Amino acid sequence: MSFDRLIKKIIETKNPTVVGLDPLVEYVPEYIRNDCFAKYGETLEGAAEAILVFNKSIIDEIYDIVPAIKPQAAYYEMLGYQGVRVLEETIRYAKSKGMFVMTDGKRNDIGATMTAYAKAHLGETVVGGNSIEAFGADALTVNGYLGTDGIEPLLEICEKKDKGIFVLAKTSNKSSGELQDQKIDGTPVYAIMGDMCEKWGSQQIGEYGYSCVGAVVGATYPEQLNELRERLPHTLFLVPGYGAQGGGAEGLAGAFDSRGLGAIVNSSRAVMCAYKKEECDEKDFAKAARREVIRMRDDITAYINMD
Amino acid sequence: MSFDRLIKKIIETKNPTVVGLDPLVEYVPEYIRNDCFAKYGETLEGAAEAILVFNKSIIDEIYDIVPAIKPQAAYYEMLGYQGVRVLEETIRYAKSKGMFVMTDGKRNDIGATMTAYAKAHLGETVVGGNSIEAFGADALTVNGYLGTDGIEPLLEICEKKDKGIFVLAKTSNKSSGELQDQKIDGTPVYAIMGDMCEKWGSQQIGEYGYSCVGAVVGATYPEQLNELRERLPHTLFLVPGYGAQGGGAEGLAGAFDSRGLGAIVNSSRAVMCAYKKEECDEKDFAKAARREVIRMRDDITAYINMD
Repeated sequence: MSFDRLIKKIIETKNPTVVGLDPLVEYVPEYIRNDCFAKYGETLEGAAEAILVFNKSIIDEIYDIVPAIKPQAAYYEMLGYQGVRVLEETIRYAKSKGMFVMTDGKRNDIGATMTAYAKAHLGETVVGGNSIEAFGADALTVNGYLGTDGIEPLLEICEKKDKGIFVLAKTSNKSSGELQDQKIDGTPVYAIMGDMCEKWGSQQIGEYGYSCVGAVVGATYPEQLNELRERLPHTLFLVPGYGAQGGGAEGLAGAFDSRGLGAIVNSSRAVMCAYKKEECDEKDFAKAARREVIRMRDDITAYINMD
Repeated sequence: MSFDRLIKKIIETKNPTVVGLDPLVEYVPEYIRNDCFAKYGETLEGAAEAILVFNKSIIDEIYDIVPAIKPQAAYYEMLGYQGVRVLEETIRYAKSKGMFVMTDGKRNDIGATMTAYAKAHLGETVVGGNSIEAFGADALTVNGYLGTDGIEPLLEICEKKDKGIFVLAKTSNKSSGELQDQKIDGTPVYAIMGDMCEKWGSQQIGEYGYSCVGAVVGATYPEQLNELRERLPHTLFLVPGYGAQGGGAEGLAGAFDSRGLGAIVNSSRAVMCAYKKEECDEKDFAKAARREVIRMRDDITAYINMD
């Protein structure tokens, strides 16, 4: 349908940020790790359980002031199916607290397979007489390299179940320009992907003017953020790269429209590892995460007008 | 290191094909489904168990005549973590039978996250004092839209653990040309991605002349197969789209070099659902899969010279 559900939560919390839950087991305070290793051994299950405790504690401390979380699939897959089980549980827990959940999977494939991914992450799987949500996130990041027929199955589920997708346009990493900055008839690839987002979303635009198809645009490229914000009026931006990757708050202003909407900025490690940076008692890790969330919100909203 | 391990198995079996295990629960014969639903209910677990029985039976019937399987992650993710558990078990089972396993995940991300995917699917995860293989496939399909720093973590693990990757170049789907056929300074995007494969693989070339970095090029585009085979002498091709998607065997000849090497052709549905097409007893599904594998091998090798 659109990203209205997310945008309403952003307005409600006056906070256009999302907390990335990309947990390495090393990020989890030692007392939790030791506890889980004692119960399950130094196994994938033990590590996964430690991460689940860590995630839930952070969610408990931030759900009232942050609209969304973004778990990154890779970090859960590192722990095999036990990790993927914790991805499911983390999504379910955050949703039970009223948060909007974007699974960062950057999935992509041909149409038939993309239907499977769409059902897996946003929709339902039919087993006999039952329809079951496998992961049940609210949004999924995807890669548009395969063109329209890899996106259409997602659009159907967005329409039916009020979900959204974010398509990679200009990614935050150093080498993103190797392909993305190359020009096709004078237009860089990232802008062509952006134009596709406008097209794909054109039938599902919500009350704030943004469709169900967003784009990923890195905080590390403020010039492209500005350029794409002007070029893509109906495309909500998911902006990674703030903080740890080097993108500053002042450069983010151009990602937002005049109402202070149009973008949601991600921070992962700085929130998860706030307790390490603060050098506080590790038992205080979730409260340190909350303090970092507030710091980030104030840092970013200082440059935009959300009234 | 290179794709030598795979190429040796291709030569050994005189069969340059791979069986895609992309199982929808509807593909599984009813007697297996009923049995698993009776045990586990019409649940994700029940469906996943049915697929595991199905996969193992097919592997048992084909491992001596096919070098590799290619499970497609999406179809396992559809069944939540229970499905992902069956992906793990399928990989482990095929490897125990001596098969080469390529996980089709089309993963992609920035460097730090790609390190997590590389460890998850090809390498090992460290938990306390243990190093554990989460999925342990031999190769992984990936998407190169993010450029070199999303590929480097994979190259490291390829080197260390003798693994390989296949990067999307020209995909088999209808809309693949929307971006992939666009030209940058006269060169189509699929060829630019192909050139990157040559560059990324240049330090890890094996005894047959192929590196650890392959490319995905669809059977549905025989002209591009020919063009890329000439352009990319060190890049092994994974060729989807034969059969169900409409790519014929005669069009595949150009994917191979003069020794009959250089490509491996995938077939998924035609093998998994051979018993439906044959209309044989459903209990004969695995033997029907074997018959289709032989038919496919003979169909394709008729056009190439493997001696």
